[in-house]
Amino acid sequence: GALGGLGLALGLWRRQAALSAAREEEEEEEKELRQRFMAPPVSGLRELRRRRREVRSRMELLIMETQAEVCRALADLDPGASFAVDSWERKEGGGGISCVLQDGAVFEKAGVNVSVVSGLLSEEAARQMRSRGKSLKAKDGKLPFCAMGVSSVIHPKNPHVPTMHFNYRYFEIEEADGTKQWWFGGGTDLTPTYLNEEDAVHFHKTLKEACDKHDVKLYPKYKKWCDDYFYIQHRGERRGIGGIFFDDMDSPSKEEVFQFVKSCAKAVVPCYIPIVKKHCHDSFTPEEKLWQQLRRGRYVEFNLVYDRGTKFGLLTPGSRIESILMSLPLTARWEYMHNPPESSKEAEILEVLRNPKDWVH
Amino acid sequence: GALGGLGLALGLWRRQAALSAAREEEEEEEKELRQRFMAPPVSGLRELRRRRREVRSRMELLIMETQAEVCRALADLDPGASFAVDSWERKEGGGGISCVLQDGAVFEKAGVNVSVVSGLLSEEAARQMRSRGKSLKAKDGKLPFCAMGVSSVIHPKNPHVPTMHFNYRYFEIEEADGTKQWWFGGGTDLTPTYLNEEDAVHFHKTLKEACDKHDVKLYPKYKKWCDDYFYIQHRGERRGIGGIFFDDMDSPSKEEVFQFVKSCAKAVVPCYIPIVKKHCHDSFTPEEKLWQQLRRGRYVEFNLVYDRGTKFGLLTPGSRIESILMSLPLTARWEYMHNPPESSKEAEILEVLRNPKDWVH
Repeated sequence: GALGGLGLALGLWRRQAALSAAREEEEEEEKELRQRFMAPPVSGLRELRRRRREVRSRMELLIMETQAEVCRALADLDPGASFAVDSWERKEGGGGISCVLQDGAVFEKAGVNVSVVSGLLSEEAARQMRSRGKSLKAKDGKLPFCAMGVSSVIHPKNPHVPTMHFNYRYFEIEEADGTKQWWFGGGTDLTPTYLNEEDAVHFHKTLKEACDKHDVKLYPKYKKWCDDYFYIQHRGERRGIGGIFFDDMDSPSKEEVFQFVKSCAKAVVPCYIPIVKKHCHDSFTPEEKLWQQLRRGRYVEFNLVYDRGTKFGLLTPGSRIESILMSLPLTARWEYMHNPPESSKEAEILEVLRNPKDWVH
Repeated sequence: GALGGLGLALGLWRRQAALSAAREEEEEEEKELRQRFMAPPVSGLRELRRRRREVRSRMELLIMETQAEVCRALADLDPGASFAVDSWERKEGGGGISCVLQDGAVFEKAGVNVSVVSGLLSEEAARQMRSRGKSLKAKDGKLPFCAMGVSSVIHPKNPHVPTMHFNYRYFEIEEADGTKQWWFGGGTDLTPTYLNEEDAVHFHKTLKEACDKHDVKLYPKYKKWCDDYFYIQHRGERRGIGGIFFDDMDSPSKEEVFQFVKSCAKAVVPCYIPIVKKHCHDSFTPEEKLWQQLRRGRYVEFNLVYDRGTKFGLLTPGSRIESILMSLPLTARWEYMHNPPESSKEAEILEVLRNPKDWVH
């Protein structure tokens, strides 16, 4: 009786102690994650922990980590400035976290945005989301979907520091019969005002190394895709000196593609930050600043006229316009009939934008 | 014999004298026209004289006159600056004359462009040209067409002087059975950085008077069309405070529509120039200049994302990109999450851009 009662009490105490330890552990973990990220993740930490084995959850953690990593690396280089962090919700489902640093000493405008949205898509919208335009069978004309990604554009002040863009994203769409279509997309690319061959080689080499770990065919394929995608048709110029770009990636397997995307995301900081460090104190002339502003104008032209992500975003009801258009530079310039003189440094970069080069052999 | 010979000689002399008088008259006329216009017209003066009764020729003279009138009025207000005049040819047929004043004391960038192009259109392109999307029957899939117009965007330096845009155009397409489809389009609209009610009323009233001479139904209809057309959907704002806009105008008759377009074109200078004169010496603060730059960013957004003319131009092979994009301001700015305080002058103009007003009753 008494012994039995003691045994019961001891059992209860042990259970409570275990529960409380688990709770403490959970709280610790949440605290740690909160410190690791710029803001609490859209799906909630508990939900992410619950389905921690799903690629969907691991991808959300990866984009949150990437956002925090990049923001910290940039903030370290621009100590006077700080990121404004906005968490926002989408009425139709999901939300995002936008981090923007504006008018710093090193960066004119740097935005790193995470979004995790879900809801129902029309068949037409689903088709448009996918660059190959695969048709998808919907139940009652609507497809449940989930789209998440991290995207970023960094516009530095100094014309000798290039602009950098990256974006890694994951889509899931559920068809009428319950099968899930999924794919990844993404890329990292560089837009210098002036050509620096050493920087171009470093940037491309770092990307190639990230790709080669998974398949040596990936870098050449995605390097070309990047040159083809960032093409300003009406100018006959690419937006920048490229990098990698891919979309609709759904093989060899979800796990392998996720690992590839992870390698790419982890390569962002080593790709770019050394270039910023190297040049952010370079001196520059007013003429060099002016040329940068004209190139910023071209950046705006590409993003507003051609970029599929921007166009899709602007037309999607409930999308957060300020987060989509944070890719635009703080300032830009358009001069009528501006043609740099032959053999100038300005003509040198134009030549490379007109005829993309191979930077790594 | 001798008398007959004398008669013959006299006849010859008279014919020669008449011919030479006609030639002199022609040369005089050409000289006069050259002085009247910014450059020789695309179709050539002789050709325009030969088919002087056709609306096509009269429209080409009208757009040339309008270009010269506007350029002179602007140059008078900005005496230190001058228009760069470029005549250009289009490989596929036709050409144009672009007049651009850049970085003046009064105008940051002012472009007045004439183009007269002709050639063959695909059925799809022809359908896109027409906002109602009427289908046209082509012989062998191609439609001979002629398109001409004058278009202009004036971006002043002073934030108290509004940006003004106008465009008047004429199209002819020949169908397989030889019937000619024709229509006019155009409009004049104002984009102030700050609202000045008196200016808004003057601008709209001048346009209304030009319209009312032809049909009192036109101004209300085209004022609304203007508010609807210059809508930046993703911002929920109009580009400016409107004016008039119309397209596909093909009734009551070619002559009557031409006369209406002529009245509109003649109203450009009286609409706008008094407003420039009134404000070009107004003092302004750096904050006001900054707000102007943010509004310029919106101007770029409309033109690159929504404007049908710009989009059509950028996609048309052989079109002159520099002339199409001369509508972009010299400088523009994008700040993340810029929201003017309530009851400020900045909020006042936003209110009118979100909810268009009737300026004339």
